[in-house]
Amino acid sequence: MGKIVVLDTTLRDGTQGEGISLSVEDKLKITVKLDALGIPYIEGGWPGSNPKDIEYFQRVQKLSLQQAKITAFSSTRRPGISVEEDSNIQELLKAGTPAVTLFGKSWDLHVVQALNTTLEENLAMIKDTVSFFKAAGREVIYDAEHFFDGYKSNSQYALTTIRAAADAGADWVVLCDTNGGMLPSEIGEIVTVAGENVSVPLGIHAHNDGDLAVANSLQAVASGAQMVQGTINGLGERCGNANLCSIIPNLELKMGDSCLPENNLSLLTETAHYVSELANLAQQSQQPFVGMSAFAHKGGIHVSAVTKNPATYEHMDPQLVGNKRRVLVSELSGVSNLKYKAQELNIELPLETPESREIIKRIKELEHKGFQYEGAEASLELLLRKALNQYQDYFQLESLKVIMEKRENMGITSEAMIKLKVGTETVHTAAEGNGPVNALDNALRKALEEFYPDIKNIHLSDYKVRVLDEKDATGATVRVLIETMDQESSWNTVGVHENIIEASWQALTDGITYALYKKDHQQSTQ
Amino acid sequence: MGKIVVLDTTLRDGTQGEGISLSVEDKLKITVKLDALGIPYIEGGWPGSNPKDIEYFQRVQKLSLQQAKITAFSSTRRPGISVEEDSNIQELLKAGTPAVTLFGKSWDLHVVQALNTTLEENLAMIKDTVSFFKAAGREVIYDAEHFFDGYKSNSQYALTTIRAAADAGADWVVLCDTNGGMLPSEIGEIVTVAGENVSVPLGIHAHNDGDLAVANSLQAVASGAQMVQGTINGLGERCGNANLCSIIPNLELKMGDSCLPENNLSLLTETAHYVSELANLAQQSQQPFVGMSAFAHKGGIHVSAVTKNPATYEHMDPQLVGNKRRVLVSELSGVSNLKYKAQELNIELPLETPESREIIKRIKELEHKGFQYEGAEASLELLLRKALNQYQDYFQLESLKVIMEKRENMGITSEAMIKLKVGTETVHTAAEGNGPVNALDNALRKALEEFYPDIKNIHLSDYKVRVLDEKDATGATVRVLIETMDQESSWNTVGVHENIIEASWQALTDGITYALYKKDHQQSTQ
Repeated sequence: MGKIVVLDTTLRDGTQGEGISLSVEDKLKITVKLDALGIPYIEGGWPGSNPKDIEYFQRVQKLSLQQAKITAFSSTRRPGISVEEDSNIQELLKAGTPAVTLFGKSWDLHVVQALNTTLEENLAMIKDTVSFFKAAGREVIYDAEHFFDGYKSNSQYALTTIRAAADAGADWVVLCDTNGGMLPSEIGEIVTVAGENVSVPLGIHAHNDGDLAVANSLQAVASGAQMVQGTINGLGERCGNANLCSIIPNLELKMGDSCLPENNLSLLTETAHYVSELANLAQQSQQPFVGMSAFAHKGGIHVSAVTKNPATYEHMDPQLVGNKRRVLVSELSGVSNLKYKAQELNIELPLETPESREIIKRIKELEHKGFQYEGAEASLELLLRKALNQYQDYFQLESLKVIMEKRENMGITSEAMIKLKVGTETVHTAAEGNGPVNALDNALRKALEEFYPDIKNIHLSDYKVRVLDEKDATGATVRVLIETMDQESSWNTVGVHENIIEASWQALTDGITYALYKKDHQQSTQ
Repeated sequence: MGKIVVLDTTLRDGTQGEGISLSVEDKLKITVKLDALGIPYIEGGWPGSNPKDIEYFQRVQKLSLQQAKITAFSSTRRPGISVEEDSNIQELLKAGTPAVTLFGKSWDLHVVQALNTTLEENLAMIKDTVSFFKAAGREVIYDAEHFFDGYKSNSQYALTTIRAAADAGADWVVLCDTNGGMLPSEIGEIVTVAGENVSVPLGIHAHNDGDLAVANSLQAVASGAQMVQGTINGLGERCGNANLCSIIPNLELKMGDSCLPENNLSLLTETAHYVSELANLAQQSQQPFVGMSAFAHKGGIHVSAVTKNPATYEHMDPQLVGNKRRVLVSELSGVSNLKYKAQELNIELPLETPESREIIKRIKELEHKGFQYEGAEASLELLLRKALNQYQDYFQLESLKVIMEKRENMGITSEAMIKLKVGTETVHTAAEGNGPVNALDNALRKALEEFYPDIKNIHLSDYKVRVLDEKDATGATVRVLIETMDQESSWNTVGVHENIIEASWQALTDGITYALYKKDHQQSTQ
């Protein structure tokens, strides 16, 4: 029933997950998004471990964040040297963050076997490192690695390590279930004992190896922890870290605690999907709270009951986390969703007319093929406006040809030829590119520039491709998402086809058509 | 610390999940697999709801199972009619199973709003239906739907419903968190009270809407429940049912209970993957206990510690659940990962020699370009063996050309031409495909088949593509991951390039080269 402080480590521990790799650009974008959600601490990386993280900490200082404190991660100093001699520690200092997360050993086994040092030296390492950063004016979050395993192996020593951190001035002592194998009952018992041993506020950092990371985090809070560390969507090594997308709504909606600024919880679903998009991971549709299926009703009994009273088969109102109810295979849900969307786009959609029914049917067909308009609203807007005869095509394809060629020991070349009709004129041109889609994009722009000079000011800013039904291998359907931008804004379009070039063509032409439509529309309203 | 009875409802509640559909054949195969795992109760379906389930119950009787009891599911009789008049009940009887699962209402809101009947009639429905099946000589598992919500709304009524079932002779009373929103603390408290009110053994049936289904099931057992219902991989409506693949190992390995016959726990991973395969779902690699990444180590520190003592970063021995340790070679990893990997591949890697330093340098360069070997171990193996001169190329590219063409209002066509040198011969051929990569794959196979007839037995089984540094849009680097398989196994390869066709070519040729190498190697060791 209090304020619980959240530390997000998606950018650090989350990137340890298999197949996860984020560019510096991605990490900065996610930082902004987490700040907008209202996460108070964002652990950005481990500056001592790689140059990418060093660059991140330089660039993150230039962002103007609303509330988040950035924290950088490192271990305590190495055995047998001073903090001044330890390059990791010096990199951490240079990162220049207001807070640092220092992890140290609590488990005697680890001290002896993994660090090859003595129990006494480990205590000195903790004390020296915490003191060093406190003297440098930093907030210190001390992560007691393997605290629970350590406690079960040698409780006195484990408690001594966290007392050492607290005595040296750590602002937080965070108890870590690093191997992720604890039961909630063990967490409850050990957190309680730890709370009797140190007077600084405690935190919990859980991993999901036993499928219990969320329950373990909630149990730690119930037993007195005031900070929860975790990641968006539970990204992280092995089975992942504790999933903040489940912990935050449980704390706020079920346990009466508060984590985010008021009204921000409804940004949760959007944030979760954004992180998946940037990490190029499919959002798990079954994911609690934020998944596409989390409030989807399939069974007929459920649907009719939910229509009478949502509480019959929903544990909470999906809007509270920014998600929505979906009634599968139901024309009714289609109309209301579409109506909602059209309103958002300022399009007047005549309901219950043959046109609107036709539009809904068309969208259903396209979604069945794999189109997804959640991340491609410009394509949806074009589809609606076209159906309502609100614009004419700006050009028509007569033919296109893409040729790639590669010879022994030489690079591959890509060329595209394109023939378009623009009004009554025909244009036929060609261009190269460093890949087939790039060549096609270059040829399309080249063909249109003389008719629509504004095209010079727009450019492709993002290109994503995802293979749907992966089991069909190279014969599978491909979805392409493209982001296009001008000086003022950006918009997203989608294409779906078995052939990646056709899918890209659909998204490319939508992206350019949207730019031209937007330009026309602005002029007419000025 | 006792025997916990597991009821698997993958075939009934599991199939309510979005996108899940199992044929009768699939359901029978899964029944056999669950029986082999040692699951004592298998809920096969709802005979009153569809003809497929009726057929299942006819055919399942002909299987000779080792230990599993099959149970069929239905609701209590409808309001206002007798059990004899209720077609659902009659279908359930006809299913001829030794046990039946009957679900009834515990929540006053549901009785009144969803069933449109009175609280008294609901009690009569429970009593009549349970008595009917007991009189017919069946074991009765009574599922108290929404028991926890019902208890929170009207505890006296909820308790009265389960006493009605128990008094009518039910063998089990299973408390259901149908909406999946309970906290473990609530489960513990309410199960305890229920245990004081009925003397038949209790069970738990949890859903995962709060990401707590596993914890809730374990808590119910700790509070006295003796049966756990759930599904393999947590399949089920919305966020799924409680995941038996997590519950069973937690009960057996952490809580000291027993669920399966001795030594059967090691069949768990195989069973989980089998069900995913038949349901045509990708097995979640992060899934606790049974996922591919569940015991995968990426960070260099973790790897060197795990090599010294697995307990340092593993909460249990992966072999106990039939899974295995994997060491990932990634940008975060060091020499120790590579050494471990080479050992696993039976490659003797001379450490601290110019060759090995050259290999490590080469891998780092490739990783910097965007190669990622953690999901492409066959490419890594080829790279190592090539560096150590352990194989020669099976073919050389002279030239390739891919042409895609599209005309107004017509589909897009893709063709590939390819010229290869195989030994002293040259082969020049062409093929079509439904996309450029598919055309290239077809042409490559066609060219090689006459030289290596075994190529007919291998095929591409998965194709993934990811755009790296997306801000460079269509000029960005692309990473392609390909899975190739023969009758016995599958392997993964990777390609990275600005041009998707070049990247695909790299992964395709690695996939085929690996197949040919493997074949040669098998022959030479026979």
